[in-house]
Amino acid sequence: MEISNMFALRKTEKKMSSPKLILVCNDDGITAPGIRALIAVAKEFGEVMVVAPDKPQSAMGHAITINSTLRINEVFIDGQKEYACSGTPVDCIKLAVNKLLPRKPDLLISGINHGSNASINVIYSGTMSAAMEGALEGIPSIGFSLCDHSIDADFSVSQTIARKVIATALSSEMPQGTCLNVNIPKVSADLLKGIKICRQARANWEEEFDERKDPMGKTYYWLTGVFKNYDTGEDTDIWALENNYVSVVPCKFDITAHETIERLKSWKLDA
Amino acid sequence: MEISNMFALRKTEKKMSSPKLILVCNDDGITAPGIRALIAVAKEFGEVMVVAPDKPQSAMGHAITINSTLRINEVFIDGQKEYACSGTPVDCIKLAVNKLLPRKPDLLISGINHGSNASINVIYSGTMSAAMEGALEGIPSIGFSLCDHSIDADFSVSQTIARKVIATALSSEMPQGTCLNVNIPKVSADLLKGIKICRQARANWEEEFDERKDPMGKTYYWLTGVFKNYDTGEDTDIWALENNYVSVVPCKFDITAHETIERLKSWKLDA
Repeated sequence: MEISNMFALRKTEKKMSSPKLILVCNDDGITAPGIRALIAVAKEFGEVMVVAPDKPQSAMGHAITINSTLRINEVFIDGQKEYACSGTPVDCIKLAVNKLLPRKPDLLISGINHGSNASINVIYSGTMSAAMEGALEGIPSIGFSLCDHSIDADFSVSQTIARKVIATALSSEMPQGTCLNVNIPKVSADLLKGIKICRQARANWEEEFDERKDPMGKTYYWLTGVFKNYDTGEDTDIWALENNYVSVVPCKFDITAHETIERLKSWKLDA
Repeated sequence: MEISNMFALRKTEKKMSSPKLILVCNDDGITAPGIRALIAVAKEFGEVMVVAPDKPQSAMGHAITINSTLRINEVFIDGQKEYACSGTPVDCIKLAVNKLLPRKPDLLISGINHGSNASINVIYSGTMSAAMEGALEGIPSIGFSLCDHSIDADFSVSQTIARKVIATALSSEMPQGTCLNVNIPKVSADLLKGIKICRQARANWEEEFDERKDPMGKTYYWLTGVFKNYDTGEDTDIWALENNYVSVVPCKFDITAHETIERLKSWKLDA
């Protein structure tokens, strides 16, 4: 079938009239201000189910819980029933889809994360791994992050952006096998220049372990580091954020470096 | 390919000018038979430093430890000093590179994992996340996995394959920004057909949560599931493994879905 026909078929299949079911998750924990701000926006679009970690699960990447058990606790927050899960963000999505939701949701949104998930942060991020797991399940999925780690961060601009991106995503077709990584700069509404579709900047963390002694005199470490951007492109998420744009990067779970396959064949491993 | 040919090749390729420094990690823990088998092979190629988790850290994905402290314990195993780390596989690599190694290693090898990391398993795998972190640090990095979860798995064929891949990698140029995901089928040497460069198969896990009651009558879950391959291509890692080939997939940490960027621009999020 031609691609254009496929799209046409999708359009008719996707009857937009029924009420939307939206799954909300994050990695900062179910009571974090960022997820509360995102839930408030999600409610404008349909029925919302919240399944999120019962404690902070930042930087958990795509971790899942296989060597211990999982718990789901019903909690009542802001006047509604939600689900606090003992596991990682990815566990939350698996439990939501397989145990809690009445049907596959129309949208999964994760965040709003307290802190940037742009560039290489995406692979460490629990927020984005929840979105990626949604994409794996065939659910249109979006992660939102505000470039402000503060617990008192102002999420009002982020809410406006989330509203816009959610509305567009619900009326559009998410490219198969992808989810969106939306990062919002820490600026006021009047300084925000717009929204840019970007690629992930080539950057890295330079670790600086903080070495300490415990009361017994034994060494332990705190992981800290400095973010280093090696990418001078103006089509990257880091460029967008540094220039007061919201960055939107489509991310995929096929991590094959397709472009290197022919080169690796020349290694003649099978000789 | 005949195993005997592989051995013959090894002898000529192993001529190395300077002594190589090889970092070894895994996710099953420093005493797992798989990493012991890999260390034995690594020692044939140069100086080996082992920095691996002090306990099983399977399915930890790209998790890092930012909300608690990290410990490194010197341990003596098989007559040599090694480093057991309290954190995740990715923590191990960060600590090794920044605190323990005298210089950037010539090669990072991770595994041999007890169980497949082919297809979508790659994004959950601690073994492969260690290799990916190595790639991020600019170190040629390879993850090895045997498609056999058993603690008594026979690693002899895997050792032969690791020897071949390591020798080739040390004398070749790893494509920038990539690492290799090597999976070895659970077959005897005489049935092994060879080594194939592949792409990651489009597959998924269908979760089947095992729901139980604790002694207090409260519900808890064990995450289980069934692997589902939706990919009929004969260039995938799953096809290779099912047909008794070793699969080698180049993996990259730029997860941008570059091919969807133009389509997403048509969403006119900035309108």
